[in-house]
Amino acid sequence: MTSLEGGEPYLDPSLSIDERVADLLDRMTLEEKIGQLAGSYVGTLGEGPHGVDDVIDEIDEYHVGAVAPFGWGGSPNESLADAVDAARQLQTHAVEETRLGIPLLFAADAIHGHAYLKESTVFPNNLGAAATWSPGLVERTAEITAAEMRATGAAQNYSPTCDVARDPRWGRTGETYGESPYLVGTLAASEVRGYQGEDPDESSVLGTAKHFPAYGDPTRGEDAAPVDVSSHTLRNVFLPPFETALEEGVGAVMPCYNSIDGEPAHGSRRFLTDLLREELGFDGIVVSDWNGIGQLHEEHRTAGTPIEAVRQTREAGLDIGSVAGGEHARHVRDLIERGDLSKQLIEASAERVLRAKFALGLFEEPYPNPAAEDVLGAPEHLDVAREAVRKSLTLLQNDGDVLPLDDDVDEVFVTGPNADEIVHQNGGWSCNADAGVPGTTIREGIVDAVADETVVTHEPGSGITTPVDIDAAAERAAEADVAVVALGEDWYLHEFGPAAETDGATGEFPTRNELSLPDAQRDLVDAVAETGTPVVAVLVTGRPLAIEWLSETVPAILMAYYPGRVGGEVIGETLFGEAEPGGRLPISIPRSAATLPTYFNHRPHPHPIGADEHPPSYDPLFEFGHGLSYTTVEYESIDLSGDAISPDEDLTVRVTLANTGDRRGSEVVQVFGRDEFSSVVTPVRELWAFERVELAPGERVTVELRISADRIGLFERSRDGRVDAGNLRLFVGGRTFDLDVGPSDR
Amino acid sequence: MTSLEGGEPYLDPSLSIDERVADLLDRMTLEEKIGQLAGSYVGTLGEGPHGVDDVIDEIDEYHVGAVAPFGWGGSPNESLADAVDAARQLQTHAVEETRLGIPLLFAADAIHGHAYLKESTVFPNNLGAAATWSPGLVERTAEITAAEMRATGAAQNYSPTCDVARDPRWGRTGETYGESPYLVGTLAASEVRGYQGEDPDESSVLGTAKHFPAYGDPTRGEDAAPVDVSSHTLRNVFLPPFETALEEGVGAVMPCYNSIDGEPAHGSRRFLTDLLREELGFDGIVVSDWNGIGQLHEEHRTAGTPIEAVRQTREAGLDIGSVAGGEHARHVRDLIERGDLSKQLIEASAERVLRAKFALGLFEEPYPNPAAEDVLGAPEHLDVAREAVRKSLTLLQNDGDVLPLDDDVDEVFVTGPNADEIVHQNGGWSCNADAGVPGTTIREGIVDAVADETVVTHEPGSGITTPVDIDAAAERAAEADVAVVALGEDWYLHEFGPAAETDGATGEFPTRNELSLPDAQRDLVDAVAETGTPVVAVLVTGRPLAIEWLSETVPAILMAYYPGRVGGEVIGETLFGEAEPGGRLPISIPRSAATLPTYFNHRPHPHPIGADEHPPSYDPLFEFGHGLSYTTVEYESIDLSGDAISPDEDLTVRVTLANTGDRRGSEVVQVFGRDEFSSVVTPVRELWAFERVELAPGERVTVELRISADRIGLFERSRDGRVDAGNLRLFVGGRTFDLDVGPSDR
Repeated sequence: MTSLEGGEPYLDPSLSIDERVADLLDRMTLEEKIGQLAGSYVGTLGEGPHGVDDVIDEIDEYHVGAVAPFGWGGSPNESLADAVDAARQLQTHAVEETRLGIPLLFAADAIHGHAYLKESTVFPNNLGAAATWSPGLVERTAEITAAEMRATGAAQNYSPTCDVARDPRWGRTGETYGESPYLVGTLAASEVRGYQGEDPDESSVLGTAKHFPAYGDPTRGEDAAPVDVSSHTLRNVFLPPFETALEEGVGAVMPCYNSIDGEPAHGSRRFLTDLLREELGFDGIVVSDWNGIGQLHEEHRTAGTPIEAVRQTREAGLDIGSVAGGEHARHVRDLIERGDLSKQLIEASAERVLRAKFALGLFEEPYPNPAAEDVLGAPEHLDVAREAVRKSLTLLQNDGDVLPLDDDVDEVFVTGPNADEIVHQNGGWSCNADAGVPGTTIREGIVDAVADETVVTHEPGSGITTPVDIDAAAERAAEADVAVVALGEDWYLHEFGPAAETDGATGEFPTRNELSLPDAQRDLVDAVAETGTPVVAVLVTGRPLAIEWLSETVPAILMAYYPGRVGGEVIGETLFGEAEPGGRLPISIPRSAATLPTYFNHRPHPHPIGADEHPPSYDPLFEFGHGLSYTTVEYESIDLSGDAISPDEDLTVRVTLANTGDRRGSEVVQVFGRDEFSSVVTPVRELWAFERVELAPGERVTVELRISADRIGLFERSRDGRVDAGNLRLFVGGRTFDLDVGPSDR
Repeated sequence: MTSLEGGEPYLDPSLSIDERVADLLDRMTLEEKIGQLAGSYVGTLGEGPHGVDDVIDEIDEYHVGAVAPFGWGGSPNESLADAVDAARQLQTHAVEETRLGIPLLFAADAIHGHAYLKESTVFPNNLGAAATWSPGLVERTAEITAAEMRATGAAQNYSPTCDVARDPRWGRTGETYGESPYLVGTLAASEVRGYQGEDPDESSVLGTAKHFPAYGDPTRGEDAAPVDVSSHTLRNVFLPPFETALEEGVGAVMPCYNSIDGEPAHGSRRFLTDLLREELGFDGIVVSDWNGIGQLHEEHRTAGTPIEAVRQTREAGLDIGSVAGGEHARHVRDLIERGDLSKQLIEASAERVLRAKFALGLFEEPYPNPAAEDVLGAPEHLDVAREAVRKSLTLLQNDGDVLPLDDDVDEVFVTGPNADEIVHQNGGWSCNADAGVPGTTIREGIVDAVADETVVTHEPGSGITTPVDIDAAAERAAEADVAVVALGEDWYLHEFGPAAETDGATGEFPTRNELSLPDAQRDLVDAVAETGTPVVAVLVTGRPLAIEWLSETVPAILMAYYPGRVGGEVIGETLFGEAEPGGRLPISIPRSAATLPTYFNHRPHPHPIGADEHPPSYDPLFEFGHGLSYTTVEYESIDLSGDAISPDEDLTVRVTLANTGDRRGSEVVQVFGRDEFSSVVTPVRELWAFERVELAPGERVTVELRISADRIGLFERSRDGRVDAGNLRLFVGGRTFDLDVGPSDR
């Protein structure tokens, strides 16, 4: 029972956060401060289920201050009512039944919408969001996610993902914004703005930039394996998106599970304090990735005991141990008592956590919104999701302009393992039980999109790995005017094993060791294609797959990523021309796993016995930035503001585009550049600017894209004076421009 | 014409090298000193042919001091007589027709024998040599190579390769000793001893440790692409073999072509001076890898001009620019004249080069041996090559003990693209024209091995990529009692393109983007296997291939690497039981390119959602260290000298083996270990000691293997005091031992 008299300064919202934090810290025991750094959860992690009552016990015994009551795979709370009920019970206990009434910080994995609650708006997964090349749209989806989260009481989102993806074997590729550090950083910053607004407040959620400092290139694509890259790559590929998110004021950072340079990030003072706080100036909270603490002992083996693991993470700079709960609090207390951990570290962490809670208005607004059901999945939210899918769907191939389809053909045949599966379509980081998850499947979207007279037939044809009467599918296909085959992957998380809803076992597709589609799906495509009926393939997948065979077998391929709740609806509209496919690839689609890594921004290198000894370094099936349109957009002019770039003046690229077709359409202007000579080896091409443009038929639009020497790191690289002048090259709209580098004053 | 009077102190062999070098340097002009740092070549590199006369012009005009007149792919001198003639002409000019008479330093790429001269002894390629696990034998092959080189006038070998191979897509995998830093370092040091003896002298050649500091893990397996690894991996995987070679006193070091951490090694003061000379204490000569200088401008683009590239390499610490000849000398002179390069750097480099020439006795013995034809390929040399092949051939699979074959069967059928091709069998870094290269092919070796009455039939069946009457092969196979199919790769160098003697084009097998054998070879195997005749596959290949299908199709697989000149003879003997297959894999054979990288000494890492979500991190088709025997060897006892390891006392592992079979055989005792907990992430297993043992039938042998805490880096890692005691684990002969870590005094 709270012993507050009321009127305590820390409960007075008219005081500054500094004053409130100072007052509250003054009143807290060491144990209470430690509790603010210990997070718990409702759900099943490793051991048996951990319920609301268990968490309440931890609050009472250890003053636990942060809880994840929903929002991840093991939670039983997948319906809004259950989740809000759990959050309300817990928060009521914390606020009303503890001595100081400090509210809990509820966190969720709302990666592409608050999607572990089935009523929520489920946006395309991040790779699909990146395909929109639309920072403003991504910001809007993040605002909606924040609103839906906060309605349920959650105030911290374990998002945005700042990881740059460099190996599509990795199961988390779809959680990233792709392979361009600049695109990733730009969109991550948009998400931070969407979650936090100008500054965190009672309608915000705290963003969490993850997984710091480098996670997206695990050895052999194996989740959480060492990211074994040079300092040069760490600085130039993996850190820049974090820097952008930090500049945007992201309130929290989550370390990566993996080790880098021999050091697990969770236990690395070099990364979490020297780099993150001291060099990059981060002053928010660092939260562990679930069991990232225990792993130091159990798997990295850099800590001889569990308590030593806790000590290492605390010394490294961790603030909240996300799921270790009471045990974590006990270990911290024991370490302090033994003199193995400084009390000052704990004080500083507690201060940061309380500061975040005050900033988020949790002392004033700790509870879920009683009208949360009006917020989650609201019609205006779903409209934004529709716009996101429209701009995300990426037309990879359209031989003979088979797309868009006529919506008044006699018969359309729909088949494939992802034609009628809403859970597959939502993908990981959303509900994985299909009972009652709302949404429109591809089959349903096609039914809605065609004329009333058109017959839509359906056969599954194949599961993800197992054929399902392919002959029946071929028969139906032969009768139809067109066949749509929805292929790809199903729901998975991190990796692809038995916890995924596959029909296979560990190591069967989807798996990191196979980027090709399984024989069942290939056989289905072959059987349907052999009927002579035109075939359109739709790929529902978290990541690029090796589909060279598919591109040789069918005329049209639409990459749908995991499009989410309204995905089927928009796919139907796009196939039949009510909408335009607006996406561009944020990641390369490789020819095979044997050609990995395949990314556009690779570094040049010698060819000791001749360039023709090598297959090309970059020879994807579909390039980064690729995406076709139903219309034709021409670059009428491309003008640069000057022929030099200097520290004092940005370069402006002015592009005039004209839609010369007779349909609406879009273009994403992509400015690539390279530094011709520099003191370190720089990529053959890097994305330096982009701008999405929507054009009505016949419309002409002029856009300006700005490039600063600072942002592309030019003068930092040339600080030693060895970079020659006259050595920048830009690539825009199929043209090339050479630029001088002006003098640096630095 | 030399203007020497005779009696100059530097020509007096009774004086010390210090005195001779000092005297000579005193007499030299700056241009003459620069010339000692400029290397030239006879052959074709990029531009048209560069002949002996061209080099003589460079000697006259630029005082060029080092020449490669043979020993690489583009040289016209593949016969001993031509090579010796060229060397003699050049050396005579340098010694007799220049002012100071400084002898030339001739270098060769004698990687597995002085094999660019067709009369030479061609040993197994390095991967095959590593499969012998025999440091003494490798030392002996290096002695022979040195003798054959020195007989032709060559006094520097661009060998040993200290590279650790981590990606079998890389075309130079076969030039390495495999994936264990310890095995690589041990054998590289053996080579250094073989080349240089105790100290370089007139019967030695200078060894060249290459490619410093890290070359063996190029991005996407593409030769000379960036090795993008952490400092931790650089220090713990790639540097250790160089450290071992340096401890052995290797006289020269060659930088790698690629960049590391953004810096091309050839232009990196950090790597070539700070690390190599200052930290590792190297005082020998650093020689460029061919055009490693020009590449800074042309491909790495870290130098805006060719002359800037020269400046960067000189500042970095290069001594000899290997092939840039007169142009290099001119650039160096210009840089000094412009004040852009210090004369002291040039003085220091010239001093190092002259010191090497004196040490090698070149002033006393500059010329080829007139009786060189008695040295190259001498019978006792070929005997050592036979021993090397015997201990190298690795029996991967032998289902139903199909091997050894009876030598008195009625009919043996031999087929496959490598059954009768001596050039394929010798592999890269040897003559690639097949006219007159001596040696025994596999077909010939089988003919020699079988009883007089046995009929040996032959059909090619397939080229490397193109079928050649597979039906005829199947017919012959059906008639035979056993079929031997020799599969694999052909001659290639660095990479696999049109310069290789393939029947394919760039990107066709062998190529880095395909580890599987081509359909032609697979179809041949299938056709032969379907006849029901027992099939033995022999793999002639530079590197591990993905042969899971093969292991499922044929009962027996013998890995032959590139076995060299006597390879066919020993393969024949081994197949028919006159010899025992003695090799053990020095590198893992992966299941597919999609599972790469696949090496046994990977680092542990977290499994955030359970170990069963992942296919295993290490799941090769055949493990590192694997190799079957024709006999059975049992580990009768394994005893450790103690239950702790400390800085003061090595651990001794005492193993007693018994040959319980009725044939001769061998075992390679392999001691693996891991540090259970340490302050940085350490491999799950590392090779810490090994010993090859030969056993007669019924023989019992006891061996002792020593492990020092120092060598496995234990106390270095624990310097911060955080490594817990009681945490070493050894794996020997299928058993596991736990060890304490004793106190460190450091």
